[in-house]
Amino acid sequence: MSKIQEECGVFGIISPEKGDVASSTYYGLFALQHRGQQSCGISVNDDGLFSTYKDLGIVNDVFSRSNLESLGQGNMAIGQVLYASGNITRDHAQPIVVNHTKGKLAIAANVCLVNAFELREEFELKGSIFHTNSDAELILHIIVEERLRSKSIEEAVSKALSRLEGAYSFVIMSPKKIIAVRDPRGFKPLCYGARDDGSIIVASESCALNAAGAKLIRDIAPGEVMVFDKNQTRSFTEFCNKENPSLCVFEYVYFARPDSIIDGASVHTARLNAGRILAQEHPVDADVVIGVPDSGLDAALGYSRESGIPYGIGFLKNKYIARTFIAPGQKTREDKVRIKLNPISDTLKGKRVIMIDESIVRGTTSARIVNLVREAGATEVHMRISSPPFLNPCYYGTDASNSDNLIASHHSIDEIAKIIGVDSLGYLSIEGIKKIACGKDCGYCTACFDGLYPTAKPTSTDRTSKYDRKISDNNK
Amino acid sequence: MSKIQEECGVFGIISPEKGDVASSTYYGLFALQHRGQQSCGISVNDDGLFSTYKDLGIVNDVFSRSNLESLGQGNMAIGQVLYASGNITRDHAQPIVVNHTKGKLAIAANVCLVNAFELREEFELKGSIFHTNSDAELILHIIVEERLRSKSIEEAVSKALSRLEGAYSFVIMSPKKIIAVRDPRGFKPLCYGARDDGSIIVASESCALNAAGAKLIRDIAPGEVMVFDKNQTRSFTEFCNKENPSLCVFEYVYFARPDSIIDGASVHTARLNAGRILAQEHPVDADVVIGVPDSGLDAALGYSRESGIPYGIGFLKNKYIARTFIAPGQKTREDKVRIKLNPISDTLKGKRVIMIDESIVRGTTSARIVNLVREAGATEVHMRISSPPFLNPCYYGTDASNSDNLIASHHSIDEIAKIIGVDSLGYLSIEGIKKIACGKDCGYCTACFDGLYPTAKPTSTDRTSKYDRKISDNNK
Amino acid sequence: MSKIQEECGVFGIISPEKGDVASSTYYGLFALQHRGQQSCGISVNDDGLFSTYKDLGIVNDVFSRSNLESLGQGNMAIGQVLYASGNITRDHAQPIVVNHTKGKLAIAANVCLVNAFELREEFELKGSIFHTNSDAELILHIIVEERLRSKSIEEAVSKALSRLEGAYSFVIMSPKKIIAVRDPRGFKPLCYGARDDGSIIVASESCALNAAGAKLIRDIAPGEVMVFDKNQTRSFTEFCNKENPSLCVFEYVYFARPDSIIDGASVHTARLNAGRILAQEHPVDADVVIGVPDSGLDAALGYSRESGIPYGIGFLKNKYIARTFIAPGQKTREDKVRIKLNPISDTLKGKRVIMIDESIVRGTTSARIVNLVREAGATEVHMRISSPPFLNPCYYGTDASNSDNLIASHHSIDEIAKIIGVDSLGYLSIEGIKKIACGKDCGYCTACFDGLYPTAKPTSTDRTSKYDRKISDNNK
Amino acid sequence: MSKIQEECGVFGIISPEKGDVASSTYYGLFALQHRGQQSCGISVNDDGLFSTYKDLGIVNDVFSRSNLESLGQGNMAIGQVLYASGNITRDHAQPIVVNHTKGKLAIAANVCLVNAFELREEFELKGSIFHTNSDAELILHIIVEERLRSKSIEEAVSKALSRLEGAYSFVIMSPKKIIAVRDPRGFKPLCYGARDDGSIIVASESCALNAAGAKLIRDIAPGEVMVFDKNQTRSFTEFCNKENPSLCVFEYVYFARPDSIIDGASVHTARLNAGRILAQEHPVDADVVIGVPDSGLDAALGYSRESGIPYGIGFLKNKYIARTFIAPGQKTREDKVRIKLNPISDTLKGKRVIMIDESIVRGTTSARIVNLVREAGATEVHMRISSPPFLNPCYYGTDASNSDNLIASHHSIDEIAKIIGVDSLGYLSIEGIKKIACGKDCGYCTACFDGLYPTAKPTSTDRTSKYDRKISDNNK
Repeated sequence: MSKIQEECGVFGIISPEKGDVASSTYYGLFALQHRGQQSCGISVNDDGLFSTYKDLGIVNDVFSRSNLESLGQGNMAIGQVLYASGNITRDHAQPIVVNHTKGKLAIAANVCLVNAFELREEFELKGSIFHTNSDAELILHIIVEERLRSKSIEEAVSKALSRLEGAYSFVIMSPKKIIAVRDPRGFKPLCYGARDDGSIIVASESCALNAAGAKLIRDIAPGEVMVFDKNQTRSFTEFCNKENPSLCVFEYVYFARPDSIIDGASVHTARLNAGRILAQEHPVDADVVIGVPDSGLDAALGYSRESGIPYGIGFLKNKYIARTFIAPGQKTREDKVRIKLNPISDTLKGKRVIMIDESIVRGTTSARIVNLVREAGATEVHMRISSPPFLNPCYYGTDASNSDNLIASHHSIDEIAKIIGVDSLGYLSIEGIKKIACGKDCGYCTACFDGLYPTAKPTSTDRTSKYDRKISDNNK
Repeated sequence: MSKIQEECGVFGIISPEKGDVASSTYYGLFALQHRGQQSCGISVNDDGLFSTYKDLGIVNDVFSRSNLESLGQGNMAIGQVLYASGNITRDHAQPIVVNHTKGKLAIAANVCLVNAFELREEFELKGSIFHTNSDAELILHIIVEERLRSKSIEEAVSKALSRLEGAYSFVIMSPKKIIAVRDPRGFKPLCYGARDDGSIIVASESCALNAAGAKLIRDIAPGEVMVFDKNQTRSFTEFCNKENPSLCVFEYVYFARPDSIIDGASVHTARLNAGRILAQEHPVDADVVIGVPDSGLDAALGYSRESGIPYGIGFLKNKYIARTFIAPGQKTREDKVRIKLNPISDTLKGKRVIMIDESIVRGTTSARIVNLVREAGATEVHMRISSPPFLNPCYYGTDASNSDNLIASHHSIDEIAKIIGVDSLGYLSIEGIKKIACGKDCGYCTACFDGLYPTAKPTSTDRTSKYDRKISDNNK
Repeated sequence: MSKIQEECGVFGIISPEKGDVASSTYYGLFALQHRGQQSCGISVNDDGLFSTYKDLGIVNDVFSRSNLESLGQGNMAIGQVLYASGNITRDHAQPIVVNHTKGKLAIAANVCLVNAFELREEFELKGSIFHTNSDAELILHIIVEERLRSKSIEEAVSKALSRLEGAYSFVIMSPKKIIAVRDPRGFKPLCYGARDDGSIIVASESCALNAAGAKLIRDIAPGEVMVFDKNQTRSFTEFCNKENPSLCVFEYVYFARPDSIIDGASVHTARLNAGRILAQEHPVDADVVIGVPDSGLDAALGYSRESGIPYGIGFLKNKYIARTFIAPGQKTREDKVRIKLNPISDTLKGKRVIMIDESIVRGTTSARIVNLVREAGATEVHMRISSPPFLNPCYYGTDASNSDNLIASHHSIDEIAKIIGVDSLGYLSIEGIKKIACGKDCGYCTACFDGLYPTAKPTSTDRTSKYDRKISDNNK
Repeated sequence: MSKIQEECGVFGIISPEKGDVASSTYYGLFALQHRGQQSCGISVNDDGLFSTYKDLGIVNDVFSRSNLESLGQGNMAIGQVLYASGNITRDHAQPIVVNHTKGKLAIAANVCLVNAFELREEFELKGSIFHTNSDAELILHIIVEERLRSKSIEEAVSKALSRLEGAYSFVIMSPKKIIAVRDPRGFKPLCYGARDDGSIIVASESCALNAAGAKLIRDIAPGEVMVFDKNQTRSFTEFCNKENPSLCVFEYVYFARPDSIIDGASVHTARLNAGRILAQEHPVDADVVIGVPDSGLDAALGYSRESGIPYGIGFLKNKYIARTFIAPGQKTREDKVRIKLNPISDTLKGKRVIMIDESIVRGTTSARIVNLVREAGATEVHMRISSPPFLNPCYYGTDASNSDNLIASHHSIDEIAKIIGVDSLGYLSIEGIKKIACGKDCGYCTACFDGLYPTAKPTSTDRTSKYDRKISDNNK
């Protein structure tokens, strides 16, 4: 069940010939939908003319056949699916497309800057205006400013990089080029591949390459700036290897799709491994291992294989549940969980059950699921979590950042076990999680678990306050 | 992947007190959505006043919060989700609600009559008019006619039963009663349960009882007429045990949800058993067993358990794919499959793979999936099907009835294996499928496999022709 | 300003060649929109295959290009716009299309039967079922029943006529024919015309013929049954001249469009005449004559011409006001009138104003308009009404039938003048209104003014009660 | 019939107490709808927090009750309806709301700058980015820049004025103030008024004040900057009387609503006067004077009064015609005109007709209308136009600017008469049109008629080319 949200999926394509790049982007965004359901958009570049359509909502709701066709043919396109905490409006939907002295410029970004407040203030004091409080718009301001004193858009992007601090992977589309950028610590994934027709595709995850008919070539390296134009692909590595790699480890555990390959490692296999290590760290005698769909399933299979305890299918997840589910009436919370996730009693009845989930945030949903499993006849419920407890806010985009809501901040593991009603509870260790992808610590951000932040903390997390605060609250 | 379609899910609720029966019905239909995606509707009964909303589309699209609320409070409601072959219009959406001399009468039906043509003609010759070609409307005509010479609505319904031949489970709502009916052979499932607040709920599958907060009491028996009113529950068994039971066995293999219990047997367990028997009937040496999501997963687990070959997760199914997926552009068919179902290469690479699916209809989708699995690196692909080959048309509602489209009608198993590109292919035997639910043959319709039809065949399968044929085709 | 509502506009077309009859019907309904805004629909007949689209709402909202195109080509079509008092659902939208032993049958009707209750009961007692409480559906039951004992559909229609009592004009479409019927008293208008391509068109008003590119041939006579098929046009006059003609005189004053010709008389000219006679009956010294848009404008011009007092434009009517105007907020009623109808102060300031409207129903809107005119600086306001006072309910479809709401039922003319705040008030006399169309009384229903009903009164005006009443209200 | 389009209507309100300013703005925009149908929007200011909703479409389509309510309560609001030539996207919809160092700033503008190209280039060269090619966004850039070196927002607005060249009336909303600005030549109307509750309202036309319940106080003078805050109203007249007044005279003839008062003159009376002068300049013997709805009606009445020839109602205009009319099928152009505008034959038959319209652009529509009038039986048709011939492009917002399309540029009046098929044709003289509002020339822009432009011509009329041109067209 979705409990944590991460910010955004990005996509870009450049083709040797003018063609239906909008459809390829549509398929790519469709495959990235799990990374953000609040808005989506596509911008097509036909020899410098940009056509853009974007709106609040998921790809399936936003893009009808007619508005997809209205984007026309082109030789490049970028697209984005957005997750953002707080209320957002249509203006936040990406790609953000602007006009500047060199023509059009568009961005599709997965970004969370820790120096956004300072950067924004710097621009405001020069008289700049912002249409949103989005970091993506801020990046455009910096690039356009740098463009005035650069010989090329790629030079401007590189100069912009030295001013950005935080987590970001983004794709820039200029009239003639697609530029893909990943921050020097590599917090957010970004990769590229190629299609038989010669098109190059950039995406947050390799599953989107597959969906658009391309094969993965490799990940964009942390700090790398890749420039794709009609004739060539160039890599600028000035910012590479300047920082320790800090890929968000939660990409493997939860955010990414299991069929994706991130930084060389299969997400599915990483989850299997998380289950295996969990079985080593927290063994228990039981009759069946089940996963909470969808993200607990792979880890449950790993736990089963390691422990030898049979894997079972414990729940039916209603596949018609979507974001727009209206949940009418006065039903109890348990009932609302049951509508999404109905236990399969033959699997559970009279059984000692090990149940794997990828995390516990506030604990309320977990408690309800445990209750459903017990009602279905389980005699014991042993909960295993394929990640360590959340103890610290994330400044890089994971929306579980308010530690007030984190059950692990206020309760011991034994207390949590009691609260959610399980017979035993075990979390994957921090050492364990670091090994799930490559068998050793290949460099991850684990700040939400251990508080070791790879960057300075933001001076103001409340960067939107100036725009979205009442006058009377400002004592003006 | 959905390839076969069955007709309709039905739901009914009667509560001791006036309340939000519309929401309960909404949840029930949501859980029955897999049984029909073409239209849906709810009719609420407030002390004889009926409010109805229905339209083409799935529950999530048809019911907004406002039109659900517009149905108001009541003490009874019925609802339906419809699958129908051919073009349908809004008029076909159920519940169908009519006025007759005793007031309102509504029906929600899962029905396929073999004597519809004769019944319809009988009414036409009396001057009756039909708004649709739906068998549900025909049933209402019969009940209303019988009502004139009956003391009660339940007597009228019972009399109507003796005139109906075919497969049907339906729910009738009169101003004061809910009546649930299952045909004497029990082709289609129907069960009922109770909720803590005293409400009685009837539904095609027990998963809908759960979704509405009720617990399963039992199945409606083949031929049983159950009458629920404010004060009591009565069962009329006049038509029970007159025919051999003939539940559609494909309910277990494909149509029903795995968390449902049908005629006492868990659908999930029946699918596990199908996989187990398949492993006995068609063993093969391999490295991993995978299922084609969603309906092949349980059987794959059963095959794995029986054979001892590890169970693996072979595909990621995109959970945002819905009926409205627009599939733009000129992509190859393989690509369109890949968007829904992307192989997980770590599971498949260098492996001898056993892949379980619940059926092969035309073979084209299977061929594409096999191709994806090979592309992902599988060295061998052994396909196992958890049902026997389709050889005969179904007259009871399964929409794979045109034997022209059935690959098994025209090709030997070896030929099919070659067409879909597998190293070996095995189907579950007819004897095998009969045992999946209760371990022995408890009475099933297997006509699509063996041609043994429990009823007479329809004299005219083309029962709509009179209404939907051009004059010039009639040589009039 | 719309204050009174009449029921429905109908349209039918038959072409020598298959073509885009749906578009012609769309244009016709568009021109008839003023006769009903609650639902609309079109049914196209392609050699016996009927395609229908209908929904609640106005033509512009219901018909998009795509659903109009989905109706396809055909050689015949009928359409309807509906006004109905009370809550209606999609099921009430016309054309109503049914299946019977001879194939398809569709009706588009403007109907109000006084013997509906008795007819409906007769059918119920035979076991018939009704999907609505609409008189149009009832007429189909009668025709289909008569069809069993008739040699042709036109014979069945003629037999049906002898069973119907009340006001009706309707169009029937069978697989091969269009049949147009007007009741023997001719309450409701109906006419037909021809187009250069040989198509025959039937419509409630001649303006719809013009909109579809046809020229008026003549009105259908009261009691006439006209049958149009591919080869010929036939008129059956069996029911003609059996009753005194009773065309609703309010068609000329308010319901019909001024550019229509009804029973040989121009509606525009009839309104001019109403104004002229009003000037003779209620002269007053003043500076300017203005009309309340839209229906008072023609009469105001007539009053001006007769009296010699200059005609002025007193109001701007906002042309973007539509049925869907949401009227948010806490504005006063005066403001809400002003949004639709803003006075033009240069016309009114310092002037003695004669203001013409076509009726006063409850008086509240009139009072507000008078107030606006005074605020704009009029020194005197003399109201003249181009029809006599409403004193009696209408049983033939005019929805001002509850005499409780009629200001003239409870107040003298002097009292009304005081209530609405005018310096003088004059109504057209009953003798006067009878002369507006042909200069003498050519036979009109004036029952709402004088209580002289051309038919028996209905035994039950509450004909829908059985279906739409709670059980507990029935003491059952 | 609408043939010429002018750009935009603006609205602003400031109330002493927090309240439903969104609804007042909604009503105001509704009254201004004729000034622009391409997009509309409202921005509400609640003590510094801005809520905005805007989209492509007319007010009735864009604002549902729920999204209007979502704007919440506030003490100020601004709104806009937009007309723009060329393709526009949602980004162009106003109000445009931006963030800058002092918080939020919003603009609703009716603007056409002749130095836009130079201003935009100046900002681009500083690194500014533009989200649209709209002049309104450009004005915000200038104001925000000036704000850095000003003590107040009103000082910044005043400084901005000295940099703007062209036609503009706009309303600015800052956290605490509403500022209304009209360009020094007063090309576009702008006025303000007050409501009984103490609210001040600014609008493009006085009809919008009325619709929002306010009374006109006076017009904003050319060059005036008015500042409204909670406590006071201040007028800055630094830019007043620096230029000759140049109100677009076509506001009186066509753009504005007849119930509006602009610069002290009634639009209705100005049109009456246009008709009177036309009768003096181009008399002809005839039987009836008719106007082409809607904008020809007032002038026709004026012509009738002056000439003594009776005024008649010549056409019925279908009031359900809206922007979304789909016009299906293969109808002739004449038929499409007839659907909107059906002649009333009793007015025309056998008559010598004088027909008044406000302009002739390409002549095609006029020709069709003349044809309809002749078909209806007119024996002579004398066309009179209540404005002089268009001969020159307009650089201030009127979208008939391409002289290639102007029939009068290529043909003599006699030729035009022949082309549109009239017996005689007369245009109002330039001297005549200057007198319609105040009886003498009070200062108008008549450049489209006489080519005397009040400002320098724009150096580049193609100001959007840089952004919306293909690379290959730039020879880059």
